[in-house]
Amino acid sequence: MRFHNPDALSLDGVSPHTLLPLPPGRLAVRNTTGPDRFAIGWGRGSVSFPFTVHATDSAARTGVLHTPRGDIRTPAFMPVGTAGTVKALTAEQVAQTGADIILGNTYHLMLRPGGERLARLGGLHRFMGWEKPILTDSGGYQVMSLAQLRKLDADGVTFRSHVDGSMHRLTPERATELQADMIGADIVMQLDECPALPAPRDTVQKAMELSLAWAERCKRAFGQRQAQNLFAIVQGGTDAELRRHSAEALVREGFDGYAIGGLAVGEGHDAMLATLDVTVPHLPSDRPRYLMGVGKPLDIVESVARGIDMFDCVLPTRSGRHGQAWSDAGPINISNARFAEDVSPLDEALDCPASSLYSKAYLHHLFKAGEILGQVLLSWHNLAYYQGLMTRLRAAIGAGRLQDFHDRFAEGVRASGPAAT
Amino acid sequence: MRFHNPDALSLDGVSPHTLLPLPPGRLAVRNTTGPDRFAIGWGRGSVSFPFTVHATDSAARTGVLHTPRGDIRTPAFMPVGTAGTVKALTAEQVAQTGADIILGNTYHLMLRPGGERLARLGGLHRFMGWEKPILTDSGGYQVMSLAQLRKLDADGVTFRSHVDGSMHRLTPERATELQADMIGADIVMQLDECPALPAPRDTVQKAMELSLAWAERCKRAFGQRQAQNLFAIVQGGTDAELRRHSAEALVREGFDGYAIGGLAVGEGHDAMLATLDVTVPHLPSDRPRYLMGVGKPLDIVESVARGIDMFDCVLPTRSGRHGQAWSDAGPINISNARFAEDVSPLDEALDCPASSLYSKAYLHHLFKAGEILGQVLLSWHNLAYYQGLMTRLRAAIGAGRLQDFHDRFAEGVRASGPAAT
Repeated sequence: MRFHNPDALSLDGVSPHTLLPLPPGRLAVRNTTGPDRFAIGWGRGSVSFPFTVHATDSAARTGVLHTPRGDIRTPAFMPVGTAGTVKALTAEQVAQTGADIILGNTYHLMLRPGGERLARLGGLHRFMGWEKPILTDSGGYQVMSLAQLRKLDADGVTFRSHVDGSMHRLTPERATELQADMIGADIVMQLDECPALPAPRDTVQKAMELSLAWAERCKRAFGQRQAQNLFAIVQGGTDAELRRHSAEALVREGFDGYAIGGLAVGEGHDAMLATLDVTVPHLPSDRPRYLMGVGKPLDIVESVARGIDMFDCVLPTRSGRHGQAWSDAGPINISNARFAEDVSPLDEALDCPASSLYSKAYLHHLFKAGEILGQVLLSWHNLAYYQGLMTRLRAAIGAGRLQDFHDRFAEGVRASGPAAT
Repeated sequence: MRFHNPDALSLDGVSPHTLLPLPPGRLAVRNTTGPDRFAIGWGRGSVSFPFTVHATDSAARTGVLHTPRGDIRTPAFMPVGTAGTVKALTAEQVAQTGADIILGNTYHLMLRPGGERLARLGGLHRFMGWEKPILTDSGGYQVMSLAQLRKLDADGVTFRSHVDGSMHRLTPERATELQADMIGADIVMQLDECPALPAPRDTVQKAMELSLAWAERCKRAFGQRQAQNLFAIVQGGTDAELRRHSAEALVREGFDGYAIGGLAVGEGHDAMLATLDVTVPHLPSDRPRYLMGVGKPLDIVESVARGIDMFDCVLPTRSGRHGQAWSDAGPINISNARFAEDVSPLDEALDCPASSLYSKAYLHHLFKAGEILGQVLLSWHNLAYYQGLMTRLRAAIGAGRLQDFHDRFAEGVRASGPAAT
């Protein structure tokens, strides 16, 4: 089994620079000696990361995605490290919260520091000092939401940088090269087109079909790799028939994992869940399922119950920078005067200094005084809260009591008011 | 010897809240069993912290100031924690750089969160999660530099808050109460008047005389304390005669330590050093000497050579937030394009993640992208650089080679250009 030989990792399309940040001993994937029901792909040219499901509870499941850079416990929440940093936090602080993997944004990184420069610097892991796995989005979503003067055609998208006004182009091939060879992502996402919702069915269908064509091109560009995976993205808006068509076509093509994209873009909580209900059944049970850009804690709980394994969202860090601290009762605004003399910590049960060592009164003071440390500590706490939630979800699935966990969680959130739902 | 009995610490004017953040075992001062040449004051009502000088080298000396909250190795640099936070850093990060003590600003803290509130919250140590010693300035300097509509009289100073426009008053008694009983500082500074230089001799003399009168009132207000010290501040501008008069009068009165104030306020490097030359000889050798608000690394080296034991300055953290990283060759501006692909760390010899784990290229990127983490890492590195400098100075004095260290350091700084001198 060549994969367990670190030397093999320099073969077949793996950029040497993706390996540099790790000491040699860290490169071998964990040897899964037990029955590995869902590990697939060992006989193929490209090797899917072994995905072991330890327990299921109705549609939900908990397990481990094994990668050369470490295990990802699922369901997993990926903190977003947009521009080579999970905002305001050191890589060590992010790891301390229990995150097994983070997400990087190809759009931001291709503009600054730039793909070629990042490759010369040894890839994103070494650049930012994060040794565990990284998943990168393809850049397509940010081109639509952030870039100026964008022009989409069948071959790709041309856009003006929001940083310096320079012109850039993303194609399926370029997006794959940026992620796999320059950033050195462990999990590469196909380039897709993601329309904002609501949109006419015709628009949604065309975007879905273009995304299918781009998936195939990304797969060809990705080629055969031993230590990196490529995930496809199911599109189709909130239309059950389009989602089914997209999922089935992608599964026929065959990818290492499947994301559900095009949600959390304005369709609302109920429509998102209904779309999961009609999409997940068309995805293989032996590969990870990733719901992109989601979300609030209750969104995550509800999506895990529907069989989702991976999430990413800027919410914990973004709301932390703006003074919101999350808990099971929803977010609190730490600048509120009622916290001025509150000596209790945000959550003393969490194994995170930001959650357990500092009083709300101190955090309140830091935000009133405009101190950077306030942004650091609330971002840190929120990530610890999210990782704690994932730990509790994994335990609930393992114990076969996810429904009970869900019901009590949803009740607590609803009792706390509209901000949390 | 009552001081070694933790129970004694609750006696005589020590606010109980100043003790809360520490486990009981941390309260006892280290038992100095060896010959303790310079420990004084044991027979008095108020107890000076034992100050042990281990070695001298010409006018310079290295030693330890023993406090109930831990030892302060001298010469010492105190990071400035203006508003209850050493800006951008956690208390743990500050401690990791090797800092034995930090400085808090009474002016900022009395305005926000406010003295009475801070007392109710258990004092500054507990509030900010810093267990080691804290020295506070008296607030007088910031009233002059930051407050609006200030009015000085013989009894104190009235001013308008720069935070919310509210009116406040500082007197020697109030400044002492704020520091000793509300903030819970380990080392309390007398209230003084510090004129900007250059100023007419008459102005400087009047400020010096007012400061003398306030020193006496602060001492009376401070009273008898077992676990806190009160330092006086020598004033007198750059006038040798005024400095001598101020120093002699304060030493006659008797304080636990002596600061040299009113420097680094526009007089220039050479005038500052000349003033040290005419002031230090009038201060007792058995008490710590603290040069307030200084300075650049070379300022510190030159002042240590003249017998100074303690320093504070916002420079490392402030310049760090603005993208400047310090080294023996002076500061570099990390945003400079020449660092865009520089894979070397700022200083791999420093035992600080910010100095040794990240490339200049990454730090460059963080500042170009306006990321908070850039400000965190450069602040952290600069403090580690400063603490490393103090470690080297202590070692050089201990080895009797401070002159050599000074000469090589000054040569390196001068070779690097004007920013470092």
